[in-house]
Amino acid sequence: MSEGLRPLEDRTVRRVGAAGPGRVGMVGAGQLARMTQQAAIGLGVELVVLAESESDPAVLAGAGFEIGSPSEYDDLRRLAGRCDVVTFDHEGVDPAYLSRLEAEGVTLAPAAGAKLHAQDKLHARRALAGHGFPIPDFSEAVGIGEFDQFAASHSWPVVAKAPRGGYDGRGVWMLEDRDQARELLADAPGPFLLEPMLDIEMEIAVIVARSLNGEQVAYPVVETVQRDAMCREVVAPAVVPAEVARSARQMGQEIAAAIGATGVMAVEFFVTPGGLLVNELALRPHNSGHYSIEGCVTSQFEQHLRAVLAMPLGETSLTAPSVVTVNVVGSDEPVGPESRLAAGLAVPGAHLHLYGKQTQPGRKLGHVTVCGQDARATAQAARSAASALEGGMK
Amino acid sequence: MSEGLRPLEDRTVRRVGAAGPGRVGMVGAGQLARMTQQAAIGLGVELVVLAESESDPAVLAGAGFEIGSPSEYDDLRRLAGRCDVVTFDHEGVDPAYLSRLEAEGVTLAPAAGAKLHAQDKLHARRALAGHGFPIPDFSEAVGIGEFDQFAASHSWPVVAKAPRGGYDGRGVWMLEDRDQARELLADAPGPFLLEPMLDIEMEIAVIVARSLNGEQVAYPVVETVQRDAMCREVVAPAVVPAEVARSARQMGQEIAAAIGATGVMAVEFFVTPGGLLVNELALRPHNSGHYSIEGCVTSQFEQHLRAVLAMPLGETSLTAPSVVTVNVVGSDEPVGPESRLAAGLAVPGAHLHLYGKQTQPGRKLGHVTVCGQDARATAQAARSAASALEGGMK
Repeated sequence: MSEGLRPLEDRTVRRVGAAGPGRVGMVGAGQLARMTQQAAIGLGVELVVLAESESDPAVLAGAGFEIGSPSEYDDLRRLAGRCDVVTFDHEGVDPAYLSRLEAEGVTLAPAAGAKLHAQDKLHARRALAGHGFPIPDFSEAVGIGEFDQFAASHSWPVVAKAPRGGYDGRGVWMLEDRDQARELLADAPGPFLLEPMLDIEMEIAVIVARSLNGEQVAYPVVETVQRDAMCREVVAPAVVPAEVARSARQMGQEIAAAIGATGVMAVEFFVTPGGLLVNELALRPHNSGHYSIEGCVTSQFEQHLRAVLAMPLGETSLTAPSVVTVNVVGSDEPVGPESRLAAGLAVPGAHLHLYGKQTQPGRKLGHVTVCGQDARATAQAARSAASALEGGMK
Repeated sequence: MSEGLRPLEDRTVRRVGAAGPGRVGMVGAGQLARMTQQAAIGLGVELVVLAESESDPAVLAGAGFEIGSPSEYDDLRRLAGRCDVVTFDHEGVDPAYLSRLEAEGVTLAPAAGAKLHAQDKLHARRALAGHGFPIPDFSEAVGIGEFDQFAASHSWPVVAKAPRGGYDGRGVWMLEDRDQARELLADAPGPFLLEPMLDIEMEIAVIVARSLNGEQVAYPVVETVQRDAMCREVVAPAVVPAEVARSARQMGQEIAAAIGATGVMAVEFFVTPGGLLVNELALRPHNSGHYSIEGCVTSQFEQHLRAVLAMPLGETSLTAPSVVTVNVVGSDEPVGPESRLAAGLAVPGAHLHLYGKQTQPGRKLGHVTVCGQDARATAQAARSAASALEGGMK
């Protein structure tokens, strides 16, 4: 075998050096794993991802990898066997597999019991309610009777959510009436999480990091701007009363402690006329924290590595008065943002992050962050660069 | 062949996607290539390095690679054959090989003729003098007569430098008298670059980027603090009169244009009672620019990629009033900084960059950057983290 043709396994066995701080396994190899790899390089930490293919974003970025599926226990076990701690780039792993890995002695960060709060919306709502956190009214429904009952006390329309597997608007239905509820029940097995239509003034989020040691820090509160049920822009700091921001950060920290989270987690809130309501939890780095790469002293990706390796956590303060991230989303354009790199780079101050994914309508292909003094100008620059990368005008 | 055991070549063929902005080859796979790889991930640019071994810093970080030597023409040719443009992590390539690559149609950035100004100190001094830039008095010496003549007009001691191959104090001799000159001539073949002992008040440097299109930008002027003939600290901005900083930036830009540089280059100056003197040129990312990763809007590594790919250049302004980088240098300690990661991370605001190199006394193993409001506190924090990583007190 020639020098240039050594098997991949050879190079992934010891990438940092014997005295390194440990090898981190990550289930999933998408953009979150890709950006974690960038952070891992600086810390001299070895990252090994469980990738579906060698063209996954984190593999293209040079992370160590195992090819396998998060739905195959043996693949998960193989990843774990190579790593000191296993963490996640997404929520799509069978909770039973995670418990089994733990029973076999694998260190998961977050632990299976904590991760479940991001994997099952019904479980999360019940747990949050049990801990006394404010959440939307909700109910579980498996039959039309439960839809009727919920509509009787909250009126139509009713929002139904699949407890598991949804993202970016998938797994969410707005039901105008009983007929639409029946239709949904005929199409999908349930159970469903029912919610009333809420009067949402703004969506905000806070990233919290909690280390294996229990040390915790919270990031500034951001506004997440949704369009077509997908997060399109993140504005830091969120323009909310100081009391609201303080309350969101405090609740974020309390939730992390209550559920025993490890690593970085995102807590998403609805701002309503009646106050803050906790919407969803993500127990991993999150789109609402991408701004932290340039916008905070410690990026969420480095923070995640620190937390899962039981290292001291880093400062979370903003590096500029205003930081705005705009996602780059695929459209009908036949080629992706890589082909329009020059146009994106021409926007002064734009920090580009391309994920190396094939373009597809509605797919997140990258993001742009701009740090500045003025919120309006900062947002405009970020939008301008994202738009240039998308190949159109917004 | 099992899924996990695909040959390396398979994954390095197409890492970014068909529509990507081009594949950049880099001769050398040390820390500069490693940090270039971090920047390449964000831009979706594929970096392929010519590495001596699979444990080179950039290979550990996941860059694509060819195993080979910069002293072997065929290895350089092989790298070039895979890339759209070839650039450098060091100066150690035979200039004749570079000219030959160009004759074969390879795009080098910088071009061979420009690169020579960083490879041969005598060539650089003559060229700079020819363009009218202020430089130290100098002379070429091959025999004792030329030492005598230089000492007659400048007095002993005389500084002799090897025109090629020196770095971090290697290839520099301070000669107290004629006997020491004779000793040097007996040991080494020459020619030598002779310089008088200069009255140096401060060493400063400026990073300039020049794209394949000829677009140019300059970074803020920094002070480089040397210890044991090695750069140990970089302080941005340098505390010099505004006129000195302006002059250094302007000269940096003029030099880049005069020699036709491409990519990032560092221009090092001596601040003397008689004014600025140009010391050395490095036509590549440089230790004096590491501070730019967190300390400037566009890091020198991203800027280098932009420049060699003929993309628009990025903003160079500081992100904080004070930015200090301190190198992490190996000592007699048997284990490297990876084993003391927690101590380094415990210093608030410290950005760690470990290079994945085996420790060795006097070897640069990493660096720490801190951004802050106050120069003294910023420097103290950076020193504290670097010291913790080195395992001792400074």
